[in-house]
Amino acid sequence: MGMVGGGSDAFIGAVHRLAAFMDNQCELVCGCFSVDPDISLSSGKSYFLPDDRVYKTYQEMFEKEAKLPADVRMDFVSIVTPNHVHFGPAMMALEGGFHVVIDKPMTFSLEEAKLLKAKVEETGLVLALTHTYSGYPAVKDAKARLARGDFGKIRKVYVEYPQGWLSKRIELEGGNNAGWRTDPKRSGKAGAMGDIGTHAWHLAEYITGLKVTELCAELKAFVPGRPIDDDGAALLRYENGATGILIASQVAAGETNSLKIRVYGENGGLEWRQTDPNILWLKWSDRPVEIIDVGANAKMTEGALYNTRTPQGHPEGYLEAFANIYRNFANTVQAKLAGEQPDPKWLDFPNVNDGVRGMQFIETVVTAGYDDSQKWVKWIE
Amino acid sequence: MGMVGGGSDAFIGAVHRLAAFMDNQCELVCGCFSVDPDISLSSGKSYFLPDDRVYKTYQEMFEKEAKLPADVRMDFVSIVTPNHVHFGPAMMALEGGFHVVIDKPMTFSLEEAKLLKAKVEETGLVLALTHTYSGYPAVKDAKARLARGDFGKIRKVYVEYPQGWLSKRIELEGGNNAGWRTDPKRSGKAGAMGDIGTHAWHLAEYITGLKVTELCAELKAFVPGRPIDDDGAALLRYENGATGILIASQVAAGETNSLKIRVYGENGGLEWRQTDPNILWLKWSDRPVEIIDVGANAKMTEGALYNTRTPQGHPEGYLEAFANIYRNFANTVQAKLAGEQPDPKWLDFPNVNDGVRGMQFIETVVTAGYDDSQKWVKWIE
Amino acid sequence: MGMVGGGSDAFIGAVHRLAAFMDNQCELVCGCFSVDPDISLSSGKSYFLPDDRVYKTYQEMFEKEAKLPADVRMDFVSIVTPNHVHFGPAMMALEGGFHVVIDKPMTFSLEEAKLLKAKVEETGLVLALTHTYSGYPAVKDAKARLARGDFGKIRKVYVEYPQGWLSKRIELEGGNNAGWRTDPKRSGKAGAMGDIGTHAWHLAEYITGLKVTELCAELKAFVPGRPIDDDGAALLRYENGATGILIASQVAAGETNSLKIRVYGENGGLEWRQTDPNILWLKWSDRPVEIIDVGANAKMTEGALYNTRTPQGHPEGYLEAFANIYRNFANTVQAKLAGEQPDPKWLDFPNVNDGVRGMQFIETVVTAGYDDSQKWVKWIE
Amino acid sequence: MGMVGGGSDAFIGAVHRLAAFMDNQCELVCGCFSVDPDISLSSGKSYFLPDDRVYKTYQEMFEKEAKLPADVRMDFVSIVTPNHVHFGPAMMALEGGFHVVIDKPMTFSLEEAKLLKAKVEETGLVLALTHTYSGYPAVKDAKARLARGDFGKIRKVYVEYPQGWLSKRIELEGGNNAGWRTDPKRSGKAGAMGDIGTHAWHLAEYITGLKVTELCAELKAFVPGRPIDDDGAALLRYENGATGILIASQVAAGETNSLKIRVYGENGGLEWRQTDPNILWLKWSDRPVEIIDVGANAKMTEGALYNTRTPQGHPEGYLEAFANIYRNFANTVQAKLAGEQPDPKWLDFPNVNDGVRGMQFIETVVTAGYDDSQKWVKWIE
Repeated sequence: MGMVGGGSDAFIGAVHRLAAFMDNQCELVCGCFSVDPDISLSSGKSYFLPDDRVYKTYQEMFEKEAKLPADVRMDFVSIVTPNHVHFGPAMMALEGGFHVVIDKPMTFSLEEAKLLKAKVEETGLVLALTHTYSGYPAVKDAKARLARGDFGKIRKVYVEYPQGWLSKRIELEGGNNAGWRTDPKRSGKAGAMGDIGTHAWHLAEYITGLKVTELCAELKAFVPGRPIDDDGAALLRYENGATGILIASQVAAGETNSLKIRVYGENGGLEWRQTDPNILWLKWSDRPVEIIDVGANAKMTEGALYNTRTPQGHPEGYLEAFANIYRNFANTVQAKLAGEQPDPKWLDFPNVNDGVRGMQFIETVVTAGYDDSQKWVKWIE
Repeated sequence: MGMVGGGSDAFIGAVHRLAAFMDNQCELVCGCFSVDPDISLSSGKSYFLPDDRVYKTYQEMFEKEAKLPADVRMDFVSIVTPNHVHFGPAMMALEGGFHVVIDKPMTFSLEEAKLLKAKVEETGLVLALTHTYSGYPAVKDAKARLARGDFGKIRKVYVEYPQGWLSKRIELEGGNNAGWRTDPKRSGKAGAMGDIGTHAWHLAEYITGLKVTELCAELKAFVPGRPIDDDGAALLRYENGATGILIASQVAAGETNSLKIRVYGENGGLEWRQTDPNILWLKWSDRPVEIIDVGANAKMTEGALYNTRTPQGHPEGYLEAFANIYRNFANTVQAKLAGEQPDPKWLDFPNVNDGVRGMQFIETVVTAGYDDSQKWVKWIE
Repeated sequence: MGMVGGGSDAFIGAVHRLAAFMDNQCELVCGCFSVDPDISLSSGKSYFLPDDRVYKTYQEMFEKEAKLPADVRMDFVSIVTPNHVHFGPAMMALEGGFHVVIDKPMTFSLEEAKLLKAKVEETGLVLALTHTYSGYPAVKDAKARLARGDFGKIRKVYVEYPQGWLSKRIELEGGNNAGWRTDPKRSGKAGAMGDIGTHAWHLAEYITGLKVTELCAELKAFVPGRPIDDDGAALLRYENGATGILIASQVAAGETNSLKIRVYGENGGLEWRQTDPNILWLKWSDRPVEIIDVGANAKMTEGALYNTRTPQGHPEGYLEAFANIYRNFANTVQAKLAGEQPDPKWLDFPNVNDGVRGMQFIETVVTAGYDDSQKWVKWIE
Repeated sequence: MGMVGGGSDAFIGAVHRLAAFMDNQCELVCGCFSVDPDISLSSGKSYFLPDDRVYKTYQEMFEKEAKLPADVRMDFVSIVTPNHVHFGPAMMALEGGFHVVIDKPMTFSLEEAKLLKAKVEETGLVLALTHTYSGYPAVKDAKARLARGDFGKIRKVYVEYPQGWLSKRIELEGGNNAGWRTDPKRSGKAGAMGDIGTHAWHLAEYITGLKVTELCAELKAFVPGRPIDDDGAALLRYENGATGILIASQVAAGETNSLKIRVYGENGGLEWRQTDPNILWLKWSDRPVEIIDVGANAKMTEGALYNTRTPQGHPEGYLEAFANIYRNFANTVQAKLAGEQPDPKWLDFPNVNDGVRGMQFIETVVTAGYDDSQKWVKWIE
């Protein structure tokens, strides 16, 4: 495993490493951790890397690693840079024969996403997209219950992702992750909708197995001077006739990371909250509410159980959800390297198709979000 | 106190009586409890009324009561009939000099509401509208905190009212309250939006003190054959630039009565849930979440405390919230009868203006809800 | 209904009145509301009583009321005075032919309690003891589920009642209810154990249907200078071999009224918290946790449903629980007055036997609580 | 890092590995994973170990590893066997110069514990005891707040650890962890009290910084035929005059792993629940309840923050708590190996002294638990 980005001053890179290491399947062997070579080098040292596997540019990394013996060079690269530096290293990695893990949203633009997808299909390499929340066992349990029809036909989807950390213009202060996220040159067309709206959208499609076909939205920058949305909401229409609401806000002051989803069918519904992630609420028209507590053998669906590490009552969290993506990806890659078919349950991680669709979501919601002349905007392919 | 509707087979009438009696300020002295004279009479008996104060029609009631001595006749009437029988008795009551309590929505149509308002202004009589949820002490506490600016300027309002009891077409079964609520001839233009959407809308305007200026909505009947909305949602724009979302659904299967509101300002926000009504969550950007537990002297705002009956840790509920409307109304009526100025804190109950505005909400949201040709619909006055 | 105690400066008297009035079954017709005749008179006025039904002493009240015509005089009296003034008016009421509602603990001493029981049995009159928490529908639901064996044989009972309001010596400040409660001359042998320990003990016996046979306890006054326990705990042994723990503290600073009970059998257990009183948690060895939400027809046991006033999702509270005792008592009294057999479900309120047993609990726990020479103390009959 | 026990069929060994690997500080280099050499070997393979570093006996492991070059041999060993196989490998490891991580309780008997302590002191090696729950950031935050006196002098400690998994005699079924835990020959004198009572006891002493001086207890085996306690409770007396209650049950059917602690001082108290581990409740006499949500910079105490990996709203869990023990231990060991003083904050993990004291707790609680002739038993040194 190599890494692009994720120097010791970054947030999500550390998360990727924790997640990758936990299950003892991935070993960090090289990296280009920063555009600043000194930070890259010192970061590499603190990650126990020899200096000759810490590179000044990602271009250098892909070139030199490709020349190393197969049992020495990295098998895959994790790209944990700001959005505008996703496509470059990802494309180069694929061209160099490396598998890829990439943080969401997959690219800066929809066009880039489509090129990446074409390259993945061309090379047969594996690309995992870290939509973390789909890695939670309770989310997988919810997906399985909905898929087998426990609640009847799905009618309603409410997904919301309120955060409050951008309630003030902290991007001017520096020393935080707000800078590139609120800068359209580095973040892309969308702010809150790109950063967390995509998570909410993906979670809803993942759990329900339903695709959005059109939406009606309003995006807004509440904080004066901010050039990109810090808040938004959308009415959703799904392919099966279900409707929904998606909320993404970074100015819900006092909220931290309160992602929550509710789905209702004809007979009942379910609810999951990221801040209490080991609980799945099942609500029924004709019997008491049930609480699924992650980890209990007899009470969990099979796929969910596979993505659980500890018995019921031993709470898992964000890092384990993240690690599920890495573990399933790593299993898949190992199978590929061994020339074997991956077990279908290993393929349960977001891939390049989710990445393309996520960029389409951004295109669609941004188009709808600022245009008061049309109510419903069809999904932009 | 007299009553129109509320026979022993009805739901909300019983609630009105419990709420009215609790504080020992209101005595039921007469009523016309049903269109079926037998049910009316037997209901009256079970409410300990003499037969001669149980009437066959509300017209008869107002006529005969008006002729009784002042210390014998009712002082006010509670109208707890289906929506299409609100205006008739209310107008007749006002014309007969009786004060009025009326269940929401105030009338069948906006036109009726305006006529009622004119009559209230003409007569100087008191009309209370039972938007129950504004009666909760925690809601009043929230309103006071927002009004004094604890959270800075309000930016976001999320209000939702999911129910699940109309997930199947139970109105065909009879023996429940679904019949008239799903019948446009008795319910009015809106179903779920009229029944519970108005509660959600009112709660949001009550707590924030802000008025909706335009909205974008989708209404829908999910249950086949139902001629009126059983589900809807709206994006809201408020007069101060805040935006919001309103959800009202009666097909969120498994939900009972899960009214909830969240409001966010520049520095923090608050949350209140009707199913856990004695708790008010205060969330802050820069300090821990605080929980206000209704009843504690030092921790509650003054107006909220006035509407609380028991010390902290002794949970109050729906009936006490309802009773707060009755108590404040009764105090106001008593002051009027005594020719005195009511204490300002007694005037804290929904009145005819809320009633008119509620009917305007229904007009606006129904207009917006089915029209895909325009995105934003201005508030219909 | 008459009242002894409960002047406008008192807490629990107001609660009794709210509870009595709510269901329109009880009318306050007379009272002696204070040892101070002026407070008594002004209180009576504020309760809409004529001056001649407000008495200077309870002795006067019982004498004069007894001489009034049957349809004018009170049918029963509510005694809401400090503990040392329970026995006197209760005995006099019974001797005068009046039914009695009395606040807990029933008397000042066990001896008094036994005399009262003898008098109740002699007269055939009805005595209700307001162990409020047994009035909650969810508690009744729990009792019914345990009784029918849903969880198998009961093994464990954990009941706790932490409060924090006596964490400082506020009884010296006056103007609160702490004075008589911390004064052994007015409160009796026990402080926290008498005031709230009895509630906890009663709740556990009510829900489980099991009697304590011996206990091991420690009582303590944490606040310097306080002459009576403000904290205690006991290990319990029940007649069927189950064991339990009872906690009662008034120095759990920051707690308000956090009564909670958990009971476990061979197959599962249940949990109820007074601060979230409409929820009953059912926990199972072999299937998900279930949440019973008070009010739902299909999900509640019959007796519990009878003691519920509103549909699911409309929270009831402390006053409704209290009112259930009054309503069931009033129904029973009305049947007695009419010479009829009361419906068995009306008899579901704490009575004189609970009162005697409560005083035995105080005797036993106080004996055990300060004696380090013996571990287990047998229930003192 | 080497491992004794923890074959692929075991529970806690897997947890140790996940915790050790997460932070990229520990690498598994050898092990003796089972008494069955085949299981040991196949386990080693699945952990990516070469066959020559998988040993048939722990004796062989310590002997052979000691002969390897310093940069090749393990630095420390994790002992994750049943209790009766703790002392042997631990003593041999220390004698061989290896640092030790050991699962709780530290040994089979108090005598063994004292010998181990003497050896640790003699060798200057580091021994960490995995009392997991002290690794949670919220627990560390609680400890810091109590230590700096936020709540005044501590008066009450309630700690409880209800589980339900031994409600039936599943040890007869095999294929689970119940076998050795309910067998006094492998578990030691105590069952539930040794397995989870020690956790509860340790958590309370860790958070409060107070030592138990005497206790009064009842232990019991509820499940017929079980030769060791599956349930117990104790009244506690602490050195500063505080009192407490400790509950440990494995027959609280329907509970999973519901460890919870509450501590009250003169001005307020705090509460932490292992099943919702990122929340710390602060309760105050004179202001609203506050919720500390783990991860927020401004709201956490310093030491707690150091033991947190992700920002607020990204829940950490059991594995991260466990990993904190490993990380702090590993940092300390690295400092020792480098001949440096460990940073004081690294020393925040349970050590050999906690281990001795834990065995004293077992001695004391077992003595008290079955002896009805004395109420209070002094702490057995």
